[in-house]
Amino acid sequence: MKAIVSIIMGSTSDLKVMEEAAKFLNDMRIPFEMNALSAHRVPEQVANFAKEAHTRGIKVIIAGAGGAAHLPGVIAAFTPLPVIGVPVRSSISIDGWDSILSILQMPAGIPVATVALDGARNAAILAAQILATADIDLFAKVQQFKRELAEKITAANEELAEIHYDFKI
Amino acid sequence: MKAIVSIIMGSTSDLKVMEEAAKFLNDMRIPFEMNALSAHRVPEQVANFAKEAHTRGIKVIIAGAGGAAHLPGVIAAFTPLPVIGVPVRSSISIDGWDSILSILQMPAGIPVATVALDGARNAAILAAQILATADIDLFAKVQQFKRELAEKITAANEELAEIHYDFKI
Amino acid sequence: MKAIVSIIMGSTSDLKVMEEAAKFLNDMRIPFEMNALSAHRVPEQVANFAKEAHTRGIKVIIAGAGGAAHLPGVIAAFTPLPVIGVPVRSSISIDGWDSILSILQMPAGIPVATVALDGARNAAILAAQILATADIDLFAKVQQFKRELAEKITAANEELAEIHYDFKI
Amino acid sequence: MKAIVSIIMGSTSDLKVMEEAAKFLNDMRIPFEMNALSAHRVPEQVANFAKEAHTRGIKVIIAGAGGAAHLPGVIAAFTPLPVIGVPVRSSISIDGWDSILSILQMPAGIPVATVALDGARNAAILAAQILATADIDLFAKVQQFKRELAEKITAANEELAEIHYDFKI
Amino acid sequence: MKAIVSIIMGSTSDLKVMEEAAKFLNDMRIPFEMNALSAHRVPEQVANFAKEAHTRGIKVIIAGAGGAAHLPGVIAAFTPLPVIGVPVRSSISIDGWDSILSILQMPAGIPVATVALDGARNAAILAAQILATADIDLFAKVQQFKRELAEKITAANEELAEIHYDFKI
Amino acid sequence: MKAIVSIIMGSTSDLKVMEEAAKFLNDMRIPFEMNALSAHRVPEQVANFAKEAHTRGIKVIIAGAGGAAHLPGVIAAFTPLPVIGVPVRSSISIDGWDSILSILQMPAGIPVATVALDGARNAAILAAQILATADIDLFAKVQQFKRELAEKITAANEELAEIHYDFKI
Amino acid sequence: MKAIVSIIMGSTSDLKVMEEAAKFLNDMRIPFEMNALSAHRVPEQVANFAKEAHTRGIKVIIAGAGGAAHLPGVIAAFTPLPVIGVPVRSSISIDGWDSILSILQMPAGIPVATVALDGARNAAILAAQILATADIDLFAKVQQFKRELAEKITAANEELAEIHYDFKI
Amino acid sequence: MKAIVSIIMGSTSDLKVMEEAAKFLNDMRIPFEMNALSAHRVPEQVANFAKEAHTRGIKVIIAGAGGAAHLPGVIAAFTPLPVIGVPVRSSISIDGWDSILSILQMPAGIPVATVALDGARNAAILAAQILATADIDLFAKVQQFKRELAEKITAANEELAEIHYDFKI
Repeated sequence: MKAIVSIIMGSTSDLKVMEEAAKFLNDMRIPFEMNALSAHRVPEQVANFAKEAHTRGIKVIIAGAGGAAHLPGVIAAFTPLPVIGVPVRSSISIDGWDSILSILQMPAGIPVATVALDGARNAAILAAQILATADIDLFAKVQQFKRELAEKITAANEELAEIHYDFKI
Repeated sequence: MKAIVSIIMGSTSDLKVMEEAAKFLNDMRIPFEMNALSAHRVPEQVANFAKEAHTRGIKVIIAGAGGAAHLPGVIAAFTPLPVIGVPVRSSISIDGWDSILSILQMPAGIPVATVALDGARNAAILAAQILATADIDLFAKVQQFKRELAEKITAANEELAEIHYDFKI
Repeated sequence: MKAIVSIIMGSTSDLKVMEEAAKFLNDMRIPFEMNALSAHRVPEQVANFAKEAHTRGIKVIIAGAGGAAHLPGVIAAFTPLPVIGVPVRSSISIDGWDSILSILQMPAGIPVATVALDGARNAAILAAQILATADIDLFAKVQQFKRELAEKITAANEELAEIHYDFKI
Repeated sequence: MKAIVSIIMGSTSDLKVMEEAAKFLNDMRIPFEMNALSAHRVPEQVANFAKEAHTRGIKVIIAGAGGAAHLPGVIAAFTPLPVIGVPVRSSISIDGWDSILSILQMPAGIPVATVALDGARNAAILAAQILATADIDLFAKVQQFKRELAEKITAANEELAEIHYDFKI
Repeated sequence: MKAIVSIIMGSTSDLKVMEEAAKFLNDMRIPFEMNALSAHRVPEQVANFAKEAHTRGIKVIIAGAGGAAHLPGVIAAFTPLPVIGVPVRSSISIDGWDSILSILQMPAGIPVATVALDGARNAAILAAQILATADIDLFAKVQQFKRELAEKITAANEELAEIHYDFKI
Repeated sequence: MKAIVSIIMGSTSDLKVMEEAAKFLNDMRIPFEMNALSAHRVPEQVANFAKEAHTRGIKVIIAGAGGAAHLPGVIAAFTPLPVIGVPVRSSISIDGWDSILSILQMPAGIPVATVALDGARNAAILAAQILATADIDLFAKVQQFKRELAEKITAANEELAEIHYDFKI
Repeated sequence: MKAIVSIIMGSTSDLKVMEEAAKFLNDMRIPFEMNALSAHRVPEQVANFAKEAHTRGIKVIIAGAGGAAHLPGVIAAFTPLPVIGVPVRSSISIDGWDSILSILQMPAGIPVATVALDGARNAAILAAQILATADIDLFAKVQQFKRELAEKITAANEELAEIHYDFKI
Repeated sequence: MKAIVSIIMGSTSDLKVMEEAAKFLNDMRIPFEMNALSAHRVPEQVANFAKEAHTRGIKVIIAGAGGAAHLPGVIAAFTPLPVIGVPVRSSISIDGWDSILSILQMPAGIPVATVALDGARNAAILAAQILATADIDLFAKVQQFKRELAEKITAANEELAEIHYDFKI
């Protein structure tokens, strides 16, 4: 089975953030691949990766990076595919502000679909939603996922009602 | 012909920013609709809109808002469709920081694909890229669009070479 | 005895911040209830909660959330009651800036009475002050509370005078 | 008829922002008064004003200021009444950040109900909501106000549907 | 011997920062006093303190506070003496930004001489420099202090030269 | 009559801000001088100026600069006199943030008494307050200045009461 | 004569900022070339340009861009030459913060020598200083340039002394 | 062998950051020296150091400092050599923002080549690139360094491919 989502990160140190994307795609049974390719250290591999991704069957690219985070934008420059950017609060980053602004503020013509700081799981959900626009089974899975999200918070609320009875009236 | 992209904005005062999305979709011949529905002033209409959008054939929602910009997130809460958020630098906004953070920093489970401040055109390009993942003709159009983008900057560079000859060697 | 203040939070992980509001209301003998209802995960429960709150006798709503913190604003959209917003410095939040701006910067027509970051106790004091505008006994309690606040700092100052005598003249 | 809301501003240069509060209260037929009293230039008048306000029948105070905006907090220190703070983007202010933080970040025990930057109208709406918690007629007016807000945006949306027909499908 | 510098802080929790000012004044043999008086919790004591300080022989006031840090400005409003403000990075503070802006951005007519975040020691040095403008002995001490500062860094530099010899040429 | 306050600015383009300091000193009849000496363009003149200032009878230095505003700190490094820093929102500056932080955040041992952005007038008032600690006539003038400040705002408030009668009760 | 400095900008709209670099190099008689090549619109041209620059005799590259400003970093990734980055406060930029952080916060291994916002002239001066490390004539020119800088500010100071005589003593 | 790069830091507490520059220069066999000289505590030594550096054979200066970080700019004021500035996230610093802005935002005429926060290693790489513009052997070393950088990330990517096989397809 061929990967249709490609997860790419600027450094293996971003793995602990980015693997949340992998876990969600795995749970959803969406075939994916994962790579670490620095936009600055191996720029030609990044360019080749991005130019060829759609020819290998990739439909959506999730790219995470921190600091002056050029990876998502550089990939978006080379591919016609939708690119989802994950700003990573890495050790070099100034509270994540640099990561966010370097990914979000792309110039006219080259969008990157940016998600929250360290929001790799949300990036994968977004990838699923994108693929589901043309896949009725996956669409049903996304709907089911949202129902379960609602059930979990409802259950949590019920626990809250129990636990704190003593100082409520 | 039924709309497959829905553009929604928090206020008609966001129209001058958001119509750039409409123009791009129009140029690409992607059927779309456009509405102004405030998450805070008509919350039930927003909820109904978002819950029903996919049943009417909408595939992607582009939502723009400024200040405490809840519209994209509220819509994302009610729909399984991918939602693209456009932070608008509206008159209430503090240089756009509130618009960006209220749209970008969504909690786990409910992504919004955020684009640059006032980046409505990029939102429409992203919508086209999303739809193109399952539409080979649109994919070709997206590729063509990127080629034209490159040609324009190349032409601009040639003009630059001409104009400033006097103080270059 | 029926609750007249309703405390609501976006996630049970906000409880350690929000229970400071509960404690103050408890101390003041103001009947209250407490719920966790995510604006994004159970948007319809939030809408129903907000629309009906005043019919159940609720007079003031205290809503806390972090990140792209839409809960207070969404509730304010659905209720005619005063809504007090507590920006929470949650784990997703960027030092609290996103929480503050998403709650504070509400558009014209839909105010949220925002208090300091993690200021749940102050939210409860404000709720007491609001209720006290029409309740002479509660007004006396609020005055008493402020006197005690003054006494505590005066006592602390006296201790300060004792302890650091050695390097003062 | 005696004023029940008091609008106070740090400088007469804040009047163009603060009169929006006056206009709303006027429209709602809520009796109010308006003063300019600088926390730094006439601190004793401010202290006397704040200590006596509730004895004159004032129920809610709206205080606006810019820069190191101490007025709302200083008044809150002297009164048991709820104080609504309006951060003003005055000429000294750094894009409003100083105004917001000086009003919002009050210490434990002394809340100020902060609204959006230059949000004087929202401050007045909040004051109406507070008074309406004990005034059934005013409560009906607040509900009516919210309905009209919804009608206005709905009408605006209908115009939007008309005007932009040419590039929609 | 009567105090000529008065150190005042908004809360005893600021003591660990503010005692650095006390230590420096002690080392310089400048008579001082130290108090904790909250601008918000005991506003009248603060007002009285500030109005009378110069009548008791105080020449300079050092005031430290965090969050919406009104204490230095409120004191400056009531006294003709120079007031030095120390922004404290207290637990409520947002990385110190609120503390800095609430102290620094005072309106025209009421300056506060602001020093660096948590810069209580620098506040005391500044107080010494102010007093030294009319005290030739203290002026000599300030000059001596600056010489010792230079000697310490010169000694540190010499150690640096020793320690890292291995990878230098 | 010899100058006792020295006003120095990083560039003549700062003059329109800094002359407010000159005007206040002039009004107060405090002898002063004014210079433009860039810390970066004529560093040796700045060093010489700072080292000799106290030998020429200068008691207080007011230094204004914008961007990476080193002038106040560099002068403070070379003089035992109190240095008041005025952050200027110059054309290079990023909304004044760079000016503020470069002047305020001085290291331990070398304080700069920082005033508000573009607060040259406040810098002069502070200089007067510093000189007044040892000059009983100037102290009386400072007290008189503060009384007039109060009278102006009181007069302004009275006008406010007149003008806006129509929508007040 | 072959260019030894290459000025490159992300868009011709950056020309009004970047031509200041050209002017300085021209004045210094340093041979240069100027191009507009977008990192996102013509990524392969940028890559080719950067990989070949040193083979054509280029010694230093000056790259300016705004928003998510990837151009300087992308060029640095492909070249062994020193790259000077100019953050441009372009129309998309959020007060320049995105431009600065995207250029400055480069990861370990790939430095960009960043200058001030819109600091193209300083970039050219830095280029001259770099080339002057191995060019004794150019080194003399740089020294001469610094002397003239000092003379200009000294002349300006003398004018200041003349003009403002009326309110100085 | 004489040093050609001089590393200077504002305080020995910056050593743990700045020694990364020393290590890289050592690895590259570029002769260097290292000093701690505070711009504020020993301003004359700094001035002398900067004025004489080029006469001792120094070609590039790397200067690191934190807070109101004047050292790099002050050195740049006194030397015709290229100065590389390293903003240090020191204990006084506000998340590094003050360090960055005080170093980056230099006025026209006096550039500082600023690198990322705590980016001392990148400063040394930049120094090597600068020296390599006139040293063919060093140029070859820089090229070799970049190749090794690429190889490391490629190896890391291969490990990534191995480790996470279980949830990829």
